[in-house]
Amino acid sequence: MFVSLEGIEGAGKSTHMPALVDLLESHKISCLSTREPGGTEFGERIREILLSKTQAPSSVEAELLLLFAARAEHVHTLIKPALEVGSWVLTDRFLDASFAYQGAGQGLGVDRVGELAQWLLPDLRPDLVLVLDTSVTTALERVQKRGQKKDRYEENDVEFFARARQYYLDQAASEPERYRVVDAERPVDEVHQELLEIVLELI
Amino acid sequence: MFVSLEGIEGAGKSTHMPALVDLLESHKISCLSTREPGGTEFGERIREILLSKTQAPSSVEAELLLLFAARAEHVHTLIKPALEVGSWVLTDRFLDASFAYQGAGQGLGVDRVGELAQWLLPDLRPDLVLVLDTSVTTALERVQKRGQKKDRYEENDVEFFARARQYYLDQAASEPERYRVVDAERPVDEVHQELLEIVLELI
Repeated sequence: MFVSLEGIEGAGKSTHMPALVDLLESHKISCLSTREPGGTEFGERIREILLSKTQAPSSVEAELLLLFAARAEHVHTLIKPALEVGSWVLTDRFLDASFAYQGAGQGLGVDRVGELAQWLLPDLRPDLVLVLDTSVTTALERVQKRGQKKDRYEENDVEFFARARQYYLDQAASEPERYRVVDAERPVDEVHQELLEIVLELI
Repeated sequence: MFVSLEGIEGAGKSTHMPALVDLLESHKISCLSTREPGGTEFGERIREILLSKTQAPSSVEAELLLLFAARAEHVHTLIKPALEVGSWVLTDRFLDASFAYQGAGQGLGVDRVGELAQWLLPDLRPDLVLVLDTSVTTALERVQKRGQKKDRYEENDVEFFARARQYYLDQAASEPERYRVVDAERPVDEVHQELLEIVLELI
């Protein structure tokens, strides 16, 4: 099984990832837990460049190609080998993040992102995409409360995140068998519980 | 006019670039002189990663996407703006280098590179591609003579460079109006003279 966890900044992905890994481990299921951009040493370098306000490229095409370069390496060196030996893969973001952020959020268009996805990965999509959904207001409040310096993505405006969120909701509505939207406005425990139930169904 | 200078390592691109820029300047033609990968600050960082034996990605798709990310930024921030104000652009490598190196040399296939080129730049090709052509033996001897530590590309084997060279020759034969092959086995002065004559025709 190949599962990706998606959602805008502040939706709670990093909060909930560890519990999902624990659940799989308690069922003796081997699982690769990873993230994008990143996952590999090369990918983490690319992540640094993308999150930085001084090093990132200025054109959205360059940004998207950079994300896909990191993704190509991630799939080639980690995700495909793990899936081939029958391991689960649980990733904090995958392809949908590019559709949501560069395609919808930055306005490149989801079709343009789709062409690149087709070029690189014509036959690899997650079996399940878990979308943590919150209002943009809640999400941005949570980012604010972290008290850390915001990275380049977190500095996007409300409209950007509203477009990204809408992509996730539209996509989930159009492919309900592969996407599950989890209301992440609720207290952490409740969200946690629902995520575990969804993953338990798969096991 | 948009001119790219191409050829395998050791063909003499860096030797001949300055003379071409001087020629244009002596004719009061404004010219952007640049290189790939690189050209922008972002591009130079990508260049470092690509030339490094420890940081470069292991999959050829990741490498190609990375080169295209740098190219996207290069075109967006430098090449297009320069062409739009009527300046010449003279670049040490452009698209053809990806066809020659990743497509032919590394074996990804020129069609796959062509799809990505079409995705990013459906309507931008150099007006003139100057191909500095030498035998692979001569090219590798020259790289050896530099006495510097070889970078990742320079460490490729004879067959790799033979495939890359063949791409340039085949491409030049198929589009003679846009490609000029210059025999760079000859003494520097003769090569220099022929390059200046070709560019003078354009002026």
